[in-house]
Amino acid sequence: MIDVQRMPDHREIAIDKVGVKGVRYPITVLDKDHGKQRTVASINMYVNLPHEFKGTHMSRFIEILNEYRRAIDIREIGGLLRDIKTRLDAQSAHLELNFPYFLTKSAPASGAESLVDYDVTYSASIDDRDQERTSMVLHVPITTVCPCSKEISERGAHNQRGMVSLTIRLRRFVWMEDLIRLIEDSGSGQVYALLKRDDEKVCTEWAYDNPRFVEDVVREVALRLKDDPNVIYFKVESENHESIHNHNAYACIEVDKEML
Amino acid sequence: MIDVQRMPDHREIAIDKVGVKGVRYPITVLDKDHGKQRTVASINMYVNLPHEFKGTHMSRFIEILNEYRRAIDIREIGGLLRDIKTRLDAQSAHLELNFPYFLTKSAPASGAESLVDYDVTYSASIDDRDQERTSMVLHVPITTVCPCSKEISERGAHNQRGMVSLTIRLRRFVWMEDLIRLIEDSGSGQVYALLKRDDEKVCTEWAYDNPRFVEDVVREVALRLKDDPNVIYFKVESENHESIHNHNAYACIEVDKEML
Amino acid sequence: MIDVQRMPDHREIAIDKVGVKGVRYPITVLDKDHGKQRTVASINMYVNLPHEFKGTHMSRFIEILNEYRRAIDIREIGGLLRDIKTRLDAQSAHLELNFPYFLTKSAPASGAESLVDYDVTYSASIDDRDQERTSMVLHVPITTVCPCSKEISERGAHNQRGMVSLTIRLRRFVWMEDLIRLIEDSGSGQVYALLKRDDEKVCTEWAYDNPRFVEDVVREVALRLKDDPNVIYFKVESENHESIHNHNAYACIEVDKEML
Amino acid sequence: MIDVQRMPDHREIAIDKVGVKGVRYPITVLDKDHGKQRTVASINMYVNLPHEFKGTHMSRFIEILNEYRRAIDIREIGGLLRDIKTRLDAQSAHLELNFPYFLTKSAPASGAESLVDYDVTYSASIDDRDQERTSMVLHVPITTVCPCSKEISERGAHNQRGMVSLTIRLRRFVWMEDLIRLIEDSGSGQVYALLKRDDEKVCTEWAYDNPRFVEDVVREVALRLKDDPNVIYFKVESENHESIHNHNAYACIEVDKEML
Repeated sequence: MIDVQRMPDHREIAIDKVGVKGVRYPITVLDKDHGKQRTVASINMYVNLPHEFKGTHMSRFIEILNEYRRAIDIREIGGLLRDIKTRLDAQSAHLELNFPYFLTKSAPASGAESLVDYDVTYSASIDDRDQERTSMVLHVPITTVCPCSKEISERGAHNQRGMVSLTIRLRRFVWMEDLIRLIEDSGSGQVYALLKRDDEKVCTEWAYDNPRFVEDVVREVALRLKDDPNVIYFKVESENHESIHNHNAYACIEVDKEML
Repeated sequence: MIDVQRMPDHREIAIDKVGVKGVRYPITVLDKDHGKQRTVASINMYVNLPHEFKGTHMSRFIEILNEYRRAIDIREIGGLLRDIKTRLDAQSAHLELNFPYFLTKSAPASGAESLVDYDVTYSASIDDRDQERTSMVLHVPITTVCPCSKEISERGAHNQRGMVSLTIRLRRFVWMEDLIRLIEDSGSGQVYALLKRDDEKVCTEWAYDNPRFVEDVVREVALRLKDDPNVIYFKVESENHESIHNHNAYACIEVDKEML
Repeated sequence: MIDVQRMPDHREIAIDKVGVKGVRYPITVLDKDHGKQRTVASINMYVNLPHEFKGTHMSRFIEILNEYRRAIDIREIGGLLRDIKTRLDAQSAHLELNFPYFLTKSAPASGAESLVDYDVTYSASIDDRDQERTSMVLHVPITTVCPCSKEISERGAHNQRGMVSLTIRLRRFVWMEDLIRLIEDSGSGQVYALLKRDDEKVCTEWAYDNPRFVEDVVREVALRLKDDPNVIYFKVESENHESIHNHNAYACIEVDKEML
Repeated sequence: MIDVQRMPDHREIAIDKVGVKGVRYPITVLDKDHGKQRTVASINMYVNLPHEFKGTHMSRFIEILNEYRRAIDIREIGGLLRDIKTRLDAQSAHLELNFPYFLTKSAPASGAESLVDYDVTYSASIDDRDQERTSMVLHVPITTVCPCSKEISERGAHNQRGMVSLTIRLRRFVWMEDLIRLIEDSGSGQVYALLKRDDEKVCTEWAYDNPRFVEDVVREVALRLKDDPNVIYFKVESENHESIHNHNAYACIEVDKEML
């Protein structure tokens, strides 16, 4: 049977990335507290395509995924990427995993345990010299109380759920758990799945005592990351689902230490 | 050219609805304050298909849409529906329009004007006896302050943006504007696009003085609709984007007066 | 500490459903081939609220979820629902689980195995007389080749991915696997995650030889369900992501045997 | 009333972007054929914030939007951006507009006219030296017929709707219409809202005679843009909603001529 993908292409145009997108698959990821955690990912896998070939062989991505999905160890991601390069006959390879990640949290007064879900995207690439490059995007929900509303009002203060998104490139492995906790400390308060009445009292008063604009949130995160020698790059974004508006408030700080 | 759709079908199964879904089109709708308003809709159009025919002629829906879209008057929707029935050679016809609708609101202290968007779905059907049946779904953002959090906390109270969804069937035409305002009065406070500092103070204090659970919100709406003789059916849902949780609180009341 | 939720309410309006919505949690569901399957669900849990009480105790839903999530057996869902009723002090209880479900499929020529994901929503309710009522919605992707395009064209035929949604109420337990396979047989062809070249040839030719309108797809499913005594109710919807249009084609058949 | 936002901040961290996100507003944009076109946008507006200030004045964004929305002329966007800078007391300003844009298309055989919607994001920034920088993202649906499936199959070929996304930076103004048409020529065929039977025949046969991989689509677009001196930067992505898979095929070419 003819291999159309391997036929020559005469347009002289190389392709940066070609592959499969939106493959939903169960995966197992590392978990600081429990060793590993099973979740479900939406996966993208790409390679480059030299100008002389017409197409890539997309089914091979799925074959590789079938072999690895039972335990994707992001500390060993280089092996998976080199496999993709070799079997797709490419010079570079890319992997993107988007999945919910769960942490057990204890309510602040009662200690009642529950799970909170965080949306995570992990990206890894390998180039023609086998250099790896990884980055991570974490989405962490927080509570924010508006400092202006608190200051100018005689009672109360508008507050809301906000979402902090951190894109980060690191020199060495860091547990997601540690980054998530760093971010949760940057808001007026944390969110939980399970709060009893005495917890709700603590959360309400704590947040009221720690009002934070979206501007404060991104500054607090930046403060903790800007001098960390393990951090190569970060972009922190904070988006408040404003309780008094039908639109969101947004702030962003981006620092690329390789560019400094 | 052969008309495959008109070929006979021998499975003896009639189809309730067949047509086009997700057609994005600019439309003009009635506006209480300005006569009409231009917006963009996602449109579904269906007819029934008797058991003896293989398919319907989908392109005719788009032809009809082309003729009507410049001014869809929901008070005259019967004409459009009868047109669909006739030209698609059907016994029943259905139209669903989903679109953002904009109202000018004045901030409570400064009077500063801005637009707030409401997501609206308008549905209309006509049956084999030319009986029309219409319903509307309005999505109205509000502010809610938690009564429990306020009561048990020494200072502050968690609050958040909530979304009230009202599905309603009426005997006679009612302006969307009037229904939206009825819903906005059911929360702890309204949301605005533009609030100056003195407005923010008013909104914060007003909401703090009017704490409402999701349970209260749906009860307040139900209270205003349950004895209205013009209301045939309503379902009111309220969903709070809880500022201290990563999930939502939800309440729903459904009343079908035809079933009573 | 005062229990605000238990305070009396004087509006005389009972609430049909009140609870938590969009709780993301890892769950384990039954799997015909492997005993059980771990996945991630978005969960809604509701109870009714009598007119005399101000609010419900939402944290209890999460407490119950924590106890059950390690193995939700939909054949034993009644126990969970009765637990909710009892602990929330309610007369009725509702549970909705939305999750991706994975089946291993073998490619038609090579036999190569891969996973296909199906979006499933499982709903269960219990009323004041402990009567259970369950339903399921399955979203199953298929391939459809247009019979009209094939008939009128000298070569080729437009085709596309379509999505079949089946809402079903059954008297006795049926494996999701069996319903999914019934639906997959209703299109022009099935979809797979992994197809080698000889599989692609088989899929292409098979689908071309079995052209199906959205009308045909819902009729094929209805044909298999309408006389099945185990089926109480079904609604089958088919939506084609038309390859020659920027909107979808849609068809729907709904049969409620309790209404007949 | 105290101006909390203007209070000093001592963390010594400047913020890159702060503002409002997801403001839905009706706008009027330029239209090559009709002068202007009314549509509905989701709008983001940001400024920088120097390290010495605690916050920005978000309500001013909405005030400016209220003044400009009746006619946003992207050829005169510099004026709007300078206004934002001045009134927010900032050194840089950013505007992002996401909206559906409609073009009238004529069916290939019958000439029947209908509208096709394209999702457009227009971004513009101005820096501290009043240098403007604009870019645009166009999402254009196309039909693609798989060359491999056609070649290896005795009859038929799998095909599907694909979405081409072009991100582009230009030296001089170019009509969106011209870019959209360039992209539509890169697939196996175009999509339409209204096709009569003789049009469907033409579309089917034309696409079958012009099979294109996602790789071909991005190469065809790149071929037309890479030597155009007006193009500073482009990224073209093509994503096929594969009719035989439940995931998508994807290809991407990115060329930054400033980096060459």
